[in-house]
Amino acid sequence: MGSIAFWYDFASTYSYLSAMRIARLCEEAGVALQWRPFLLGPVFAAQGWTTSPFNIYPAKGRHMWRDMARLAHLNGLAPIRTEGDFPQHSVLAARVALIGLDEGWGEDFTRAAFAHEFAEAGRIDDAQALGAIVGSLGRDAAAALEAAIGDANKARLRRQTEEAQAAGIFGAPTFVTGDGELFWGDDRLEQAIAWAADRPGARIR
Amino acid sequence: MGSIAFWYDFASTYSYLSAMRIARLCEEAGVALQWRPFLLGPVFAAQGWTTSPFNIYPAKGRHMWRDMARLAHLNGLAPIRTEGDFPQHSVLAARVALIGLDEGWGEDFTRAAFAHEFAEAGRIDDAQALGAIVGSLGRDAAAALEAAIGDANKARLRRQTEEAQAAGIFGAPTFVTGDGELFWGDDRLEQAIAWAADRPGARIR
Repeated sequence: MGSIAFWYDFASTYSYLSAMRIARLCEEAGVALQWRPFLLGPVFAAQGWTTSPFNIYPAKGRHMWRDMARLAHLNGLAPIRTEGDFPQHSVLAARVALIGLDEGWGEDFTRAAFAHEFAEAGRIDDAQALGAIVGSLGRDAAAALEAAIGDANKARLRRQTEEAQAAGIFGAPTFVTGDGELFWGDDRLEQAIAWAADRPGARIR
Repeated sequence: MGSIAFWYDFASTYSYLSAMRIARLCEEAGVALQWRPFLLGPVFAAQGWTTSPFNIYPAKGRHMWRDMARLAHLNGLAPIRTEGDFPQHSVLAARVALIGLDEGWGEDFTRAAFAHEFAEAGRIDDAQALGAIVGSLGRDAAAALEAAIGDANKARLRRQTEEAQAAGIFGAPTFVTGDGELFWGDDRLEQAIAWAADRPGARIR
């Protein structure tokens, strides 16, 4: 059985698009899926960037928001609605997601947090907002947040981010198949799944 | 009838992928196609770059070459083969293309030059190489090259590049539909054509 690791950052618009359909696509293709939240910040810093390239390069940023609007429409998602600073600080959301993935609610949390952020103009950068999302899943928000900011979990997210950098990941979303093939960008998701499933013609040798 | 302007740079790997299938796709969709060669150099310089972002960010560059290998395979193109410096200087090729587009051989020249560059490890940055390509199309290479480097044609390419920048183009390939919708990247080509053709569900209002 083929597998894919889905590397995503909660601040990343294109990660949102992938998060909302990857589980369904992997299930249809019979591909095992690992959710790997990480932080783009240190990855971008290593490239000399202190914010999103969509802020550094305004023309690219304008295109990204229009592209997101079009793709949300094509993907059957609600219209993109955001408010306040972009990108949001995603470190706490990623820490909560790690706890959730251990406890079986990480996928639902990921989708709910992304939808809150990009379809409902919500914030995902503080404990109250994230606690409300965890609570909406019927989970104990206080316990999840406490575990999220524990030293062990903080260290785990750091290691996960270092692992992403060591794997050559330079943006999000990124998909890495079980046999080590790396695909960058939401527009490569279907291709990555075809590769992982070893569909006829999908791989080059 | 819908229309698309195809903005491309001869040094751009992803422009190659689009150039090899855009005419067929537009014909099938009943969309009029304009070929608009321009220069990324001034566009990149305005963003503070002195070379391709694929050279500035090595991890991104490694992914691009692997991505190109995969996409050439999926698109039924010959394996990617390049030699020497990347990106190549594309100014002379763009000048020749402008002459060719006036005279009815610009599309064939564009495809032949891209294939020479990315499938045959050939150079496209000097008069001899470009003359051989023009000659292979059964055209008068010396006349084409002379017209290409005439002052009027040089000024025309500069204006075309300024027009691209004024339109908010920041990379290549870029597709601009007749109603002004801008799509960046080879992975948006099919979407841009669907928009231009006004296929059901393709547009957001």
